[in-house]
Amino acid sequence: MWKFKTPGIPDEEFERIEKVPITKEEIRVVQISKARLKPGQIIYDIGCGSGSISIEAALQIESSGKVLAIDYDENAIELTKKNMKKFDVTNISLIHGNAKEAILKLEEADTIFIGGTGGDTKEIVELSENKLKSGGRIVVGIILIETLYSVLQALNRLQFESVDITQVTISKSRKTSTGTMMLARNPVTIISATKI
Amino acid sequence: MWKFKTPGIPDEEFERIEKVPITKEEIRVVQISKARLKPGQIIYDIGCGSGSISIEAALQIESSGKVLAIDYDENAIELTKKNMKKFDVTNISLIHGNAKEAILKLEEADTIFIGGTGGDTKEIVELSENKLKSGGRIVVGIILIETLYSVLQALNRLQFESVDITQVTISKSRKTSTGTMMLARNPVTIISATKI
Repeated sequence: MWKFKTPGIPDEEFERIEKVPITKEEIRVVQISKARLKPGQIIYDIGCGSGSISIEAALQIESSGKVLAIDYDENAIELTKKNMKKFDVTNISLIHGNAKEAILKLEEADTIFIGGTGGDTKEIVELSENKLKSGGRIVVGIILIETLYSVLQALNRLQFESVDITQVTISKSRKTSTGTMMLARNPVTIISATKI
Repeated sequence: MWKFKTPGIPDEEFERIEKVPITKEEIRVVQISKARLKPGQIIYDIGCGSGSISIEAALQIESSGKVLAIDYDENAIELTKKNMKKFDVTNISLIHGNAKEAILKLEEADTIFIGGTGGDTKEIVELSENKLKSGGRIVVGIILIETLYSVLQALNRLQFESVDITQVTISKSRKTSTGTMMLARNPVTIISATKI
């Protein structure tokens, strides 16, 4: 259970397994904020990984809303299911499969999160445009330069406005025997935009 | 009005005046997340500036909670008042004056935000410890190395646990005549901790 209203569940509170990625706390809260959520919304989380974005979004949209969490890795789906239990969240539907096929069958979305999608991100952005309601938001978390370029090109070509590109670089403290050092994490670029 | 549940009001939606600082959107959402807010809480925002943290916190804690926004700059108090009107928020009490004197008279707090306090941050952290409820959160936004050092020393000496130091460096895109460049902002360090 997360007993607070604000997003930002600490990473260590999630169930984790090796090789299934998690969107880390600070990146996650920026992504959630860019999505601009409210109760009752329909959300896709494409490449849900550990389910951390799905869980936080599900809490924000409340039981009147629904998250559709998609991953091609069965371990990610199982892990997200465990995290749903851990945080007592029931408004997430888990979809195991290829996002490019899966989203064709889904109802229209208010917000689509895309992350951890291998080399398919541009195509998924293009398909997402068709599934987003007018005024809906897309939020893409990106670590590869090639993905950044191709998503930006796609967003400019498609019907999106208010395109925002935010690179976030986080360092976290660690105690050493003699003091406190900062450990760098890799930069993550978050592209968000509104469908016209 | 901010019609979404999630924090992260775009900077350009706030009323601004010269020389009164604003906590920028992405830094603000990380600070709000570290505070772990819920309805009904009592919050201090020490060095409220444009009031962006106060407004976002006030929305999260709802009308059953209250933000006490303090600044020694009358322009900041006036500007926060304008932003309260703009976002239709009424659960913020404005206090014009020196934080070190002002907080002595306040009721106990669930969360204390500290930022933009000139050279007094360490003393304000020490006074804040007395005013925080057990389990309450302190969230300090820091840009000076000297402040970072002194606050860390103070938190280690006082009754705080779960001390988290997160440095956030944001870059934002800007269109040029030939493409899209990233513009760097200065790093901000956010220290958060829980009172025992």
